[in-house]
Amino acid sequence: MKPELYILGSNSATPTRDRHPTAQILRIGSSKIMIDCGEGTQNQLLKYGLRHTGITHICISHLHGDHYFGLIGLLSSMSLSGRKDTLYLIGPPALNEIINLQITHGAISLNFSIDFIATNPNQPSFVTQTNLFSIESFPLKHRIHCTGFLIKELPKELHINLEAIQFYKVPISLLNDLKKGADFITENGETIANHLLTTPAHSSYSYAFCSDTIYDPEIVPYIKNVDLLYHEATFMKNLEERAQLYYHSTAEQAGKIAQQANVKKLIIGHFSSRYDNLEMLLKEAQEVFENTVLALEGNMITIGE
Amino acid sequence: MKPELYILGSNSATPTRDRHPTAQILRIGSSKIMIDCGEGTQNQLLKYGLRHTGITHICISHLHGDHYFGLIGLLSSMSLSGRKDTLYLIGPPALNEIINLQITHGAISLNFSIDFIATNPNQPSFVTQTNLFSIESFPLKHRIHCTGFLIKELPKELHINLEAIQFYKVPISLLNDLKKGADFITENGETIANHLLTTPAHSSYSYAFCSDTIYDPEIVPYIKNVDLLYHEATFMKNLEERAQLYYHSTAEQAGKIAQQANVKKLIIGHFSSRYDNLEMLLKEAQEVFENTVLALEGNMITIGE
Repeated sequence: MKPELYILGSNSATPTRDRHPTAQILRIGSSKIMIDCGEGTQNQLLKYGLRHTGITHICISHLHGDHYFGLIGLLSSMSLSGRKDTLYLIGPPALNEIINLQITHGAISLNFSIDFIATNPNQPSFVTQTNLFSIESFPLKHRIHCTGFLIKELPKELHINLEAIQFYKVPISLLNDLKKGADFITENGETIANHLLTTPAHSSYSYAFCSDTIYDPEIVPYIKNVDLLYHEATFMKNLEERAQLYYHSTAEQAGKIAQQANVKKLIIGHFSSRYDNLEMLLKEAQEVFENTVLALEGNMITIGE
Repeated sequence: MKPELYILGSNSATPTRDRHPTAQILRIGSSKIMIDCGEGTQNQLLKYGLRHTGITHICISHLHGDHYFGLIGLLSSMSLSGRKDTLYLIGPPALNEIINLQITHGAISLNFSIDFIATNPNQPSFVTQTNLFSIESFPLKHRIHCTGFLIKELPKELHINLEAIQFYKVPISLLNDLKKGADFITENGETIANHLLTTPAHSSYSYAFCSDTIYDPEIVPYIKNVDLLYHEATFMKNLEERAQLYYHSTAEQAGKIAQQANVKKLIIGHFSSRYDNLEMLLKEAQEVFENTVLALEGNMITIGE
C-alpha cells in the first residue's frame, strides 16, 4: 500500500467559512503521522471520518497559531477516549512548555505518555525512525523558528520467488534473510545470488512538507527527488513583495522550488483568505511545474501515483 | 432592546460531528460579552454570521479545554483583522500566563490591549462595570478553580413624557436629570415630582452562567431571581453518581437550582456526548422547572421573554 496524504486544512492565518488552517495526516502502513494541527483539526478528523487512533507522531512546523492551536484539544480528546500508546510529539522546544502549562492548569491527567522531540531550526537533522519510516527536519526561513519535514519510507523487503526457493530447496528459516537481500549458500557450498530467489521490493516513497517559508532555494538539497512535495503558496506572484515581507511564498515560487528539486509531484497550500478561487494559484504554479495539485481539505493524495 | 444570548456551543469535553464545546455571546446594547470559548468558537461565529468585532469582554469560567481552547485563536484573528479596542479578558489567573506564553512564542504582536481581570474562586466578587452592565463572578464547585458569572443590565433611563414637560415648561437642559429620576422645581419654587414628567424605564435584565459545577445549592443566593439562568446539565439523573464524581450536574439538579433560585427561565447545556437525543435531558429538567430550554448551538434567546 502506498502512503496516503489526507488534507484536513490548508488555509493561512485565519479560518474562513469553508477553509481551515493547516493540518495533514500522512498514513504509512498502520501508522498515521499528523503534520501541523491548526485550530479545529479534531473537528476536521470527525468530519472526514478519520480516527485519531493510530496517530503515532505529530510534527509541528512552528508556533504560529494556524499551525498548532488545535493540538492541545486533540491531545485532550485522545486521552478522554482512552489512548494508552505513547505519542511522539515533534516541534519547537517551546511547544512542550506551552502544552505542559495547559495540562498543569487544566489538571489534565493524560492517560498516555508524550515523548517530545525538539526540532533544530539551524540545520537538517534526523528526528526519529520506526520500522516503516524515518522523519528528518530541515530549516525553513520564516519569521520564527520553523522547520520542514522529510518523511521517507524505509526500504521494503524483497518478495520471495516461491518457485525458486522450492527449486533450490531453501529452508523456511532463511526466508527472512532472503527478504533482506541475503544470498543462499547450498549444502554443497554453492552461492545462489539473491536476485535468483526474490523479486524486487515495492518502491519506497518520500514526502517533504514545507510550510511556512520565504522563497528559499537553499532548501532544495533537503527535498531533492521526493515523490511528493508540499510547499506553501500563500500568495500569487503579483503579491511577491508582500510574500517576501512576511516570509511567505507565491504559487510561482512553489513551482520553482519543485522544479529545482526535481520532485515528482507538487501540492500547494496555505492559501491566503483573500483568494476565493484557488484555481488561479494552481495555474500559476503549473506554468512552472506542471504536475501540481491543490491541497484541498477532504482530499487524499496517494504518494507515488 | 432586550439582551440576547447566542449559543455557539454547548457540548461537554470533546466535540462531536455536530456539537461544539461551550461558547456563548451575550449582546447587551452595542456590547457583546463572550462567555467561555471552546475550540472552534471563531468558526462558529463565522458559521452563524456573528462578527467578533464588538466583543468587549470575554469571560472564561475555568481552564478545562472545552471552555477556553478557542480563545488564543480568536484573539489572533481579532488582531489580524485590525482590532484596536481594548479587550477585557476575565478568568483564572493562569489564563493570562498561558495566553502570554503563546503570544511570546508565536511572536504575535497584538494590535490591541488586553486588560486582564483575574477571577476569585473563593468568594463572590465584583468584576467590572460599563455604562450598560456589570459583571460579577461567584465560586462554582468543580475540579479546578471555576467561577460562574452574573451579568446585570444597569438601571435604564426613565422616558420623558413630552406632553408633561411642555405643560410644566421644563427647560431642555434639565431633561437628562429627569431621565435619571430628578424632580423639577419651577420658577415659583414648586416641586413637580419626577413621576409626573416621565414614564417608567425599560426593565433591566440579568443573566447568570453556571458551568461547570457539581449540584450546589450554595450558589442559589448569587443567582436569585435572575431572568435567565444557564446551568450545566451534563448527565441525566440515572448517572447522578457519575455527575457527583466528576463535579458535574444532572438535568434534574439544574431544574432544582432554577427552582430554588426562583429564576424566570432556565437554559441547560454542557451535554455529554453520549446523548444523541437532548430532548430527554430537557424533559427531565422540565419535570422540576417547567420554563426550561436547551442550549442548542445557533439558537438565540431573548432575555426577558
